[in-house]
Amino acid sequence: METLIQAIQNYITISPEEEIIIGRLFSPLDLKAGEFLLEEGKVCRHVAFIREGLVRYYINDDGNERTIYFSKEREFVCNYMSFIPQTISDRYIQALEDTRLFIISYEKLQSLYAEIRQGERFGRLAIEYVFVTAIKQLGSMYTDPPATRYQQFLHIYPDLVQRIPQYYIASYVGIKPQSLSRIRKRISGQH
Amino acid sequence: METLIQAIQNYITISPEEEIIIGRLFSPLDLKAGEFLLEEGKVCRHVAFIREGLVRYYINDDGNERTIYFSKEREFVCNYMSFIPQTISDRYIQALEDTRLFIISYEKLQSLYAEIRQGERFGRLAIEYVFVTAIKQLGSMYTDPPATRYQQFLHIYPDLVQRIPQYYIASYVGIKPQSLSRIRKRISGQH
Repeated sequence: METLIQAIQNYITISPEEEIIIGRLFSPLDLKAGEFLLEEGKVCRHVAFIREGLVRYYINDDGNERTIYFSKEREFVCNYMSFIPQTISDRYIQALEDTRLFIISYEKLQSLYAEIRQGERFGRLAIEYVFVTAIKQLGSMYTDPPATRYQQFLHIYPDLVQRIPQYYIASYVGIKPQSLSRIRKRISGQH
Repeated sequence: METLIQAIQNYITISPEEEIIIGRLFSPLDLKAGEFLLEEGKVCRHVAFIREGLVRYYINDDGNERTIYFSKEREFVCNYMSFIPQTISDRYIQALEDTRLFIISYEKLQSLYAEIRQGERFGRLAIEYVFVTAIKQLGSMYTDPPATRYQQFLHIYPDLVQRIPQYYIASYVGIKPQSLSRIRKRISGQH
């Protein structure tokens, strides 16, 4: 629970009493590698915080999986496009490693906003961060060439290149694994 | 000021005393048609609320203006991608008609969040709405075909088709004005 409290304290100040409330509102959830936190066609009912592990977000595009995002330990995970309006999700969130989470339901998050003195402020600042990150990421996905996308991947996720299978990185970059190998060779040739 | 208060009351309850605070924090700004609320390369320093008028958001893409959004009376206007982190804007916001606004600076908005009892809640709910709308809109811009984009334009902005010049609508849809005429004929032929 300590890392979750710290992640919230990045945004707001919380009292010891409020730490207890937060501990009551979140529940543990463990996923095996390959299991799903969210599936297409279902409503995203929880925001999760990763204690240990790694997940990927992907869309099933006529049978082709398009990986669009990764989240790792000490990060929040959610499809806010489904969670905020409580409508069905167009994407999957899947554990890439055995992953240990704390999750909070939509209803309990509303309680957190109400019961924690700076709860609404936490909500505002957290969604502002997600907003700026998501729009940048979405714009890049559609407009940046693969080599730029790969450089950005290395920049955003420097510690993940060893933990994520190459075909998921290629899918994130938007190319075939063979093309990613060529880009990697070209980049390593530059150093 | 009445319509601005109503727009905020769509999200939160405010007291008569708080209405006075809000009135103090916002300032009037009038733009002539063609004038800019925000220009590329500058930092977006204000959130604006449109009392009367109409604006368009566009990007200058190597000399081609790509219109990406419209906002009209009783709506908030801002490039949050620039405003939230206070970094330079990649887009313009331009008045399409003589437009009367109330604006609030970044610093005064922080005062609003602090001085209004449900100020942070207003901020959270407003940015959640913007987030869901912006992601949908951005996804559509890159993936939907022009005919679908035009149908969505008619759905989102049913009252604006008479107020916006055809070449801006064509730019929003992502096609040349002549192609838009063909789509319009095809659609009107269906009714």
